[in-house]
Amino acid sequence: MRILGVDPGLTRCGLGVIDTLPARKARIVAVDVLRTPSADSVDLRLGSLAEAFDTWLDTHRPDVVAIERVFARNDVSTIMGTAQVSGLTMGLAARRGIPVAMHTPSEVKAAITGSGRADKKQVTNMVTRILGLDAPPKPADAADALAIAICHSWRGVMSAQSTPGAVKDLTERKGGGRQGSGLTKAQEQWARALRQAK
Amino acid sequence: MRILGVDPGLTRCGLGVIDTLPARKARIVAVDVLRTPSADSVDLRLGSLAEAFDTWLDTHRPDVVAIERVFARNDVSTIMGTAQVSGLTMGLAARRGIPVAMHTPSEVKAAITGSGRADKKQVTNMVTRILGLDAPPKPADAADALAIAICHSWRGVMSAQSTPGAVKDLTERKGGGRQGSGLTKAQEQWARALRQAK
Repeated sequence: MRILGVDPGLTRCGLGVIDTLPARKARIVAVDVLRTPSADSVDLRLGSLAEAFDTWLDTHRPDVVAIERVFARNDVSTIMGTAQVSGLTMGLAARRGIPVAMHTPSEVKAAITGSGRADKKQVTNMVTRILGLDAPPKPADAADALAIAICHSWRGVMSAQSTPGAVKDLTERKGGGRQGSGLTKAQEQWARALRQAK
Repeated sequence: MRILGVDPGLTRCGLGVIDTLPARKARIVAVDVLRTPSADSVDLRLGSLAEAFDTWLDTHRPDVVAIERVFARNDVSTIMGTAQVSGLTMGLAARRGIPVAMHTPSEVKAAITGSGRADKKQVTNMVTRILGLDAPPKPADAADALAIAICHSWRGVMSAQSTPGAVKDLTERKGGGRQGSGLTKAQEQWARALRQAK
């Protein structure tokens, strides 16, 4: 399974692609951090991120896109750009029929290091080790996107429960509606409808 | 000038297209409210909004997209979906080289009714009158999207100042860099680069 991890942000948007291997192992495929100048207007920054993200979807053809969940915090202004980028990447992936999973930062840290309060260096070290890299991934803040992708590969079916559609997803899961891929029934229907339309 | 007004939302996303006419008049071209089921996961809802919004851009070819600005409020959860939809529509418009302007709800109300605290009914009545309609636009909550488009046609150059890139925009304006269309220099460069690439 190929997973594209997204660490959403206007100034820096981390993207990391991995292929899962047997025995909880994974191979790195690509990693980068997209940057947009803070002097540009938000619409131009989102426009260039849309172009770049669609190019990554074309190039790497992921089976799943895993995005770090934006958190409700007190300082709303800081998360606005993140919410806009997450909405953009979610919409661009979903319209292609690619399932999208969301993971909170502490879920990612806990999955990678065993602790939901791990610091950036611990996460980077574990990502380097898990992917069998000779050196930490560059640029420095690229490790987060890979961590999200690795987290998704390990959390599997659980992941989709963390989306806002969780209650419905859970119901479907109980009814045996969900597949091992972590797709909800609605996501499968959407993907099938898209395939038929093409 | 053709303006597409957007009242962003996950459950209801209002879209209204107007053509401006001389003497502060305008003609309605199209109006609708896109709805996505709240039982679906957010990614699927954003995916179907992305498809629908791109279809509107293809069909109506607006010169400008005017979007209601999401506000920083205490209850973050309620604005998350709105921020995601606004990010998605901003990115989809900007990647085509279409300039995007943001207007706050009170700017829209003040432009349409003369009062930033006008209620929904007052806004609907004025929109109906300004566009010379026989009856209020349907569905009922479609008037807001038209109000945003009308507001933009009247606020013109001022509008772009309300975007987060305001300081830079202002500087450019002083230097004579902004055109009467309300485009920033960066937006013009982007539009020009897109045209050259095609």
